[in-house]
Amino acid sequence: MTTDTRVQADKLRTFCYEALEKVGVPPADARIVADIQVESDLRGVHSHGTIAIVGYIGRIKAGGTNPRPNIKIVKESANHALIDADWALGQLVGTRAMEICTAKAKKAGMATAGVFHSNHYGAAATYSMMALKQDLIGFTVTNAAAIIPPTGSKTGIFGTNPISMAVPTARSYPYVLDIATSHVATQKIVQARREGQKIPLGWGMDKDGNPTDDPAVALTSGIQPPMAGHKGYGLAMMVEILAGVLTGAWFGRASEAKNWAPQMKTNIGHFFMALDPSIYMPIDTFKERMEQLIDEIHSAEKMEGVERIYVPGEIEYLKREDYLKNGIPFPPATLARLEDFGREIGVSVKLR
Amino acid sequence: MTTDTRVQADKLRTFCYEALEKVGVPPADARIVADIQVESDLRGVHSHGTIAIVGYIGRIKAGGTNPRPNIKIVKESANHALIDADWALGQLVGTRAMEICTAKAKKAGMATAGVFHSNHYGAAATYSMMALKQDLIGFTVTNAAAIIPPTGSKTGIFGTNPISMAVPTARSYPYVLDIATSHVATQKIVQARREGQKIPLGWGMDKDGNPTDDPAVALTSGIQPPMAGHKGYGLAMMVEILAGVLTGAWFGRASEAKNWAPQMKTNIGHFFMALDPSIYMPIDTFKERMEQLIDEIHSAEKMEGVERIYVPGEIEYLKREDYLKNGIPFPPATLARLEDFGREIGVSVKLR
Repeated sequence: MTTDTRVQADKLRTFCYEALEKVGVPPADARIVADIQVESDLRGVHSHGTIAIVGYIGRIKAGGTNPRPNIKIVKESANHALIDADWALGQLVGTRAMEICTAKAKKAGMATAGVFHSNHYGAAATYSMMALKQDLIGFTVTNAAAIIPPTGSKTGIFGTNPISMAVPTARSYPYVLDIATSHVATQKIVQARREGQKIPLGWGMDKDGNPTDDPAVALTSGIQPPMAGHKGYGLAMMVEILAGVLTGAWFGRASEAKNWAPQMKTNIGHFFMALDPSIYMPIDTFKERMEQLIDEIHSAEKMEGVERIYVPGEIEYLKREDYLKNGIPFPPATLARLEDFGREIGVSVKLR
Repeated sequence: MTTDTRVQADKLRTFCYEALEKVGVPPADARIVADIQVESDLRGVHSHGTIAIVGYIGRIKAGGTNPRPNIKIVKESANHALIDADWALGQLVGTRAMEICTAKAKKAGMATAGVFHSNHYGAAATYSMMALKQDLIGFTVTNAAAIIPPTGSKTGIFGTNPISMAVPTARSYPYVLDIATSHVATQKIVQARREGQKIPLGWGMDKDGNPTDDPAVALTSGIQPPMAGHKGYGLAMMVEILAGVLTGAWFGRASEAKNWAPQMKTNIGHFFMALDPSIYMPIDTFKERMEQLIDEIHSAEKMEGVERIYVPGEIEYLKREDYLKNGIPFPPATLARLEDFGREIGVSVKLR
């Protein structure tokens, strides 16, 4: 049993800014990416937090990711935009795309945006939650390295392909769904390997499709099971169609590990949607109806041993309050890895 | 081991028309509903097929469902419509709503429609697939009787809340996803009870939330587990928000069993969306990209003992070809129930 170390969010942000600037990311862009990654740590989604910049910076140094991209709208209308990311950090183009999408939805009632030539964009909830500030419902999906086989197969065809939706409320924390359509997010297996832990059976498969509890085997087999069997396969394919087929990005086996080396240009795709509830009813009525649904969930009868029923996103909001006050807990190997990385790249800030 | 009896689709259609007309449904409307239910049987989705009209007619006779509704658009724009179903059969208003939604999407690039004051609308894929004829991506969700508890609870808050999406292709069968966010569709448990079969553990829960293999216990406990634990809970809530909160329909515990008696007006909600891929790229390019993804799925390496890898919807299209030629297989108790019902209500057509 090891103890986590608490690190203040501000230190992590400075750490990220400095690291990203060292490899040529302009200061304003470095701040956007750093804020997004630290926000994920604050929400307890450490798999998509500060530690992920180690990989992002590796790709910039190797040439696969473009630190100074020329992000361009290549097609648009009153209610959609198609965006060429120019191999940007996914966080930069994701932020731009959702800004464009929500601005259009505010006028048109709803809008979509598609992105191609992109990279990993961090936690999907980053973008769906951007819609909340404007009282919109936000939605996003992204594809990723081909790793989920269709049911009955052992060839990875789909990414972990997350689905995120965020819905505004009147007083309670907003509804924020962010789920991988794989059984778990790959980064959770990466984290288990880093911390020297076994993974539960069902998280990963060996190369013949058999269950394994070894994160290294699960990560090298190239395949991961979908959530809920054929239903998860169907949802992973839904995401692949919206984020990949429809946007002009890679889809299917094009994103296999062999095309994903740090020096290679990836062509990951993202899809965004924003919908204004006020086209259906006054926004305050909608938000009060959300409150009523949330009240019903909170007051539902608990199963034995359960202390509290949570709404999707609520645990993350509660962690955020704790972590802002008391610092973000880092497991030992993850913090050590981050500190080593900071020394390697010459970052001045000390995390503890 | 009992043998199924094959029944021709035409006989089933006539059976349904006649039965619906007997309770005052106008002929043109009876045909719409009959065609939809028999189409579900043809696709092998018997839980949402002809047998379901027994319940629909029971509700019409008792006064809960309106056989001659005045379906009205109460709010609309270039890209959305909100529709009052006037307690119609869900199939009638579902068809109308998706016609309106696809017509608007053809002009605006995308559109949504919401429906309230509705009933069970049959198989969700009915409506998403309507978009295919116009080379659109179709999407629909519906809420239903409150039966899925949020994770940690034993109070049913969400319906089985299916998600369906259909995507056009160039030559292959289209992608057609249609999944309940419960572990299985309620009608599959109803069917097991009718056929005197046990259900697999995991399909249902007793009233304390423990697993049961008795379909009667699962159906009377009032609760069913979501697919994939907390992920399915999150998706069921997503559907509840779109189909219920946003449309002005019932949501949450309002649709508990006690409000669902045949003589009571239900206020089920549906949500529809259509998106034109040609706003992102030429439609033929999009459809060829779908073919490439489907080819990759079909040629993926099979796990031991697997003969073929299917795309979502493909099994249903293959069944349809078989059943159109050779008749639709009915298990004995289901067919007997249908024949008894035909005699009770005075339908002339003999099913065998």
